[in-house]
Amino acid sequence: MKLRILAAAVSALSLAPLYTAAQELIQPIKPPAQINIGMVELGKKLYFDPRLSKSGFISCNSCHNLSMGGSDNLTSSIGDKWQQGPINSPTVLNSSLNVAQFWDGRAADLKEQAGGPIENPGEMGFTHTLAVGVLQSIPAYVREFKQVFGTEKVDIDAVTTAIAEFEKTLVTPNSRFDQYLLGKTDALNTDEVAGWKLFKESGCVACHNGPAAGGTSFQKMGVVEPYKAKTAGEGRFAITGKDADRFSFKVPTLRNVELTYPYFHDGAVDTLPEAVDIMGRLQLGKKYTPAQNAQIVAFLKSLTGDQPSFAIPILPPSADKTPRPTPFN
Amino acid sequence: MKLRILAAAVSALSLAPLYTAAQELIQPIKPPAQINIGMVELGKKLYFDPRLSKSGFISCNSCHNLSMGGSDNLTSSIGDKWQQGPINSPTVLNSSLNVAQFWDGRAADLKEQAGGPIENPGEMGFTHTLAVGVLQSIPAYVREFKQVFGTEKVDIDAVTTAIAEFEKTLVTPNSRFDQYLLGKTDALNTDEVAGWKLFKESGCVACHNGPAAGGTSFQKMGVVEPYKAKTAGEGRFAITGKDADRFSFKVPTLRNVELTYPYFHDGAVDTLPEAVDIMGRLQLGKKYTPAQNAQIVAFLKSLTGDQPSFAIPILPPSADKTPRPTPFN
Repeated sequence: MKLRILAAAVSALSLAPLYTAAQELIQPIKPPAQINIGMVELGKKLYFDPRLSKSGFISCNSCHNLSMGGSDNLTSSIGDKWQQGPINSPTVLNSSLNVAQFWDGRAADLKEQAGGPIENPGEMGFTHTLAVGVLQSIPAYVREFKQVFGTEKVDIDAVTTAIAEFEKTLVTPNSRFDQYLLGKTDALNTDEVAGWKLFKESGCVACHNGPAAGGTSFQKMGVVEPYKAKTAGEGRFAITGKDADRFSFKVPTLRNVELTYPYFHDGAVDTLPEAVDIMGRLQLGKKYTPAQNAQIVAFLKSLTGDQPSFAIPILPPSADKTPRPTPFN
Repeated sequence: MKLRILAAAVSALSLAPLYTAAQELIQPIKPPAQINIGMVELGKKLYFDPRLSKSGFISCNSCHNLSMGGSDNLTSSIGDKWQQGPINSPTVLNSSLNVAQFWDGRAADLKEQAGGPIENPGEMGFTHTLAVGVLQSIPAYVREFKQVFGTEKVDIDAVTTAIAEFEKTLVTPNSRFDQYLLGKTDALNTDEVAGWKLFKESGCVACHNGPAAGGTSFQKMGVVEPYKAKTAGEGRFAITGKDADRFSFKVPTLRNVELTYPYFHDGAVDTLPEAVDIMGRLQLGKKYTPAQNAQIVAFLKSLTGDQPSFAIPILPPSADKTPRPTPFN
């Protein structure tokens, strides 16, 4: 008897047209878990602190601005002494979900990434040693590092660990699309649902998948037709040296894509309709009709989730002995 | 009988060594009042929005950073294309209490000030017309302007009115010194109280007075001895043309002075002990002993109040038709 009931239940379960988010190639963004709050608070200060740059003017937030979708909305970023960056700044939002960091994946994780811009002469223009020296000279920072890491000795490993921990919190759950995935069928209107269907059926989801709708793989930019980039980078090839990786870039997340313009690794495209048109033609060999394009764009705008919300951090002041920024020499 | 009791009460009152804040030349900072919250929220977004600059990179908060005492902690600021500013950025904190704005007082109030940097070629490098055009193209901004100002037509008057309204909220009540003024006698330690006494008795308070401990008058920099400024500005003279105003600058607030280094209109001095020493000698003809200097510095650090606390604003995204920033041309 018990067995028969169980069998019936299993049968009902497998036959029911149950909608589950897990069946889709894009899954809902989950709120952050296993977070060290003290480390997040320290990392948040460091993320906003321009004293990690030579000039005292550029912080992580300058190019990954959390008021602007975790990006700077510029074609390419502005670095020390107004140098023009070689590539578009990717969003920091949901970047913990990426298979690797930077467009070419040269950093394995957020911690490794965080150290890069600080010592890049074209970005923050500093050195790890000098940045750590600044922090080590500030009593309130030293106390906070001691509380979080158990030692008053600040080092770049602790600095980037804290920044990465903060960045793990920068996920954007609760988009209307995620509400839809989780069963609120009226969270999307008919155009958005049609756009999502088209997005899947025409093959976009082959690369833009996973919770971040991207960030899971490297792919060639320009599959069916070549992409004429405005910048010289060869992408993943620079890391692997493999010919197959030439012009291959990390697939960007489409989460919050309405906020993270301009688009592509060279930031050449300002609007979503144009980006969708180009991706359809170059990657899929498809020319979307204006109506189809509008539906896909409508779907993409439903991917904007709850933006990180927190009080602006108040940075501890420099001490009399703190080395001063040198923006003009 | 009743009269005698009253007389005795009055007598007790007038004879009692009652400490009242009103008797002092510095008064406690009051929380903001008569604030239009909708306008503040709009102004907060505008304050953080780099799209008010030609480059799309510089916002009000870039040089008046609310994570850093409302200043940039640089000798002089970085403007469009990394131009070096001619003068140190004064703090925005408590600036609503200033008799006028800018070091030379050339703007009557916060609203007039807010328009200056946007169209200053050495600062945000934009024009009012172009900045308004950007905002007018962004539907979420237009809706918010309509809600606050009753019209969908954005103009620079509304923009600067909203920014000024936000800036009115950037006061810093509840410093330990204010707690002391309000009767909590143990809010200051003996060194800090001695410093406050010295500050008054040696004449600092003649200029650094009012709730902001400054901002109430223009004074010559270098009264007893000339000040050898690192920059060329002649201060208030540029506005009035009066010889008496040569090298006369608005007395800066000492509120949060621990956070607003470097000091003086040319930002030439990094530390409070040095600033106190110079001011004593040049303005008052007094050479403080190291112990006196330390006491005054201790008092000054008690002027740090509650910093403005609010969630980072999330800026509405540009629309397809929004003109794009041009940082590199």
